[in-house]
Amino acid sequence: MKLARIGAPGQERPAASTDGLTWYDIADLIGDLNGPTLETALPTITAALAAHTLPVTEPTRFGPPVAGIGKIICIGLNYRDHAAETGATPPSEPILFLKTPDTVVGPDDTVLVPRKSVKTDWEVELAVVIGATARYLESEEEAAACIAGYAISHDVSEREFQIERGGQWDKGKNCETFNPLGPWLVTADEVPDPQALGLRLSVNGTTMQDGTTADMIFGVTHLVHYLSQFMVLRPGDVINTGTPAGVALGRPDHPYLRAGDVVELEIDGLGRQRQTFGQA
Amino acid sequence: MKLARIGAPGQERPAASTDGLTWYDIADLIGDLNGPTLETALPTITAALAAHTLPVTEPTRFGPPVAGIGKIICIGLNYRDHAAETGATPPSEPILFLKTPDTVVGPDDTVLVPRKSVKTDWEVELAVVIGATARYLESEEEAAACIAGYAISHDVSEREFQIERGGQWDKGKNCETFNPLGPWLVTADEVPDPQALGLRLSVNGTTMQDGTTADMIFGVTHLVHYLSQFMVLRPGDVINTGTPAGVALGRPDHPYLRAGDVVELEIDGLGRQRQTFGQA
Repeated sequence: MKLARIGAPGQERPAASTDGLTWYDIADLIGDLNGPTLETALPTITAALAAHTLPVTEPTRFGPPVAGIGKIICIGLNYRDHAAETGATPPSEPILFLKTPDTVVGPDDTVLVPRKSVKTDWEVELAVVIGATARYLESEEEAAACIAGYAISHDVSEREFQIERGGQWDKGKNCETFNPLGPWLVTADEVPDPQALGLRLSVNGTTMQDGTTADMIFGVTHLVHYLSQFMVLRPGDVINTGTPAGVALGRPDHPYLRAGDVVELEIDGLGRQRQTFGQA
Repeated sequence: MKLARIGAPGQERPAASTDGLTWYDIADLIGDLNGPTLETALPTITAALAAHTLPVTEPTRFGPPVAGIGKIICIGLNYRDHAAETGATPPSEPILFLKTPDTVVGPDDTVLVPRKSVKTDWEVELAVVIGATARYLESEEEAAACIAGYAISHDVSEREFQIERGGQWDKGKNCETFNPLGPWLVTADEVPDPQALGLRLSVNGTTMQDGTTADMIFGVTHLVHYLSQFMVLRPGDVINTGTPAGVALGRPDHPYLRAGDVVELEIDGLGRQRQTFGQA
């Protein structure tokens, strides 16, 4: 099942689809797609889809597929080839940093190059959306049961702010509009192996990243189990699981993004994003 | 004016007071104390207090004084003596990291030592609560106008998680219950000089931190202006502005916290916190 939020910014209504083509409005059924409904309402939506009683809706614009995100936990250097291209040693345990939920925009919304930025960079990532509280989990099996689904996340990054302005990465990760999410969430039951997904990103039509989640250093259930030892994961939280090689930082010519650039992202089975960059 | 949220966890009702002794329920007047009401409802509350029409309420328990916090931005090494005790060079510009809003608890709630933690540490901090959107501010005067008020924040920190487990500090800053906030927010008009506040912290009755915000490297209006160049600050956001010397990390005997320890914090004019530590 695919779950999305459709409509103008701030006025999105939740919708569900089995094929990603025909969408059904579920606002009257569940309210909104958020932590509480991800935890409790998926069976209700599944049953309503099967009963063919839901009204069809037209996907004019996809917003972020989850409302009221509590936190976004990001994993750094989680693909060997990306760690290598940045000159870093592959980490022996997950590195985590944070994005704030107000950086989230829809998958095709404008992303703003920050003022005074000269190193705005791209990162296609598999997002894990949490569906049940995870606190000191004891196994990866328990972790798997806490995953509601998956989506594409664009972990937009300003490398000067991230690396050269004090060393704590959050400064370059939380600029306005820096986390396009969506177009939809695919429920975990339809992603039998999250470690076998191709993920790609292009800039102005040129492929820049072409990786697979098989190359993650720490897989998604490892990450959920690991993170739950340091913080409480709650329904509606999002984990950005890291990016493969091919970012501007890792290329000899450092082709950082400018206003007017068009970035397209896709992950097998999770749809596509397309952003035109603007200037803040 | 002092603003608080009083009641059992999750059931707090907003309240206002002029003297910190007699509290008046303002739930019917404004709904809750959160970003939108901090932005728009302070004149309404002030007028209602002056009209003596509000019902008195009994402060049974203080919760966090702000509901629906969007983000908590923390400033690292912002007192020269604290930078020195940790062996760090004083930063040339603010270092920022993040706490997630779900770490926030009331000022006297139990704080949990994380499982497998051996380096849980304290940090008394002046919290700035944002009352108006701050985006690419042009001056510190504009920054001052975006501050709704001030509160005590306890930036509880796990030093092994923070420093020795990958190097990005967020891992040691976001454990469950790690951000007691309150007991109340004092509106900015009643804090004429936020750079002249004594702040103190004791553990089991022994004073450990005894500093003044005069020793901040970057003052609060500098911080708000600076942060607004990297992210959008919104009403209801919180800035933890750093801690003075005296933390366990900086003491020769590293007396880290254990279950049963009692930590008390106070800042001139902002009240007191008192937490008994427990074990997660």
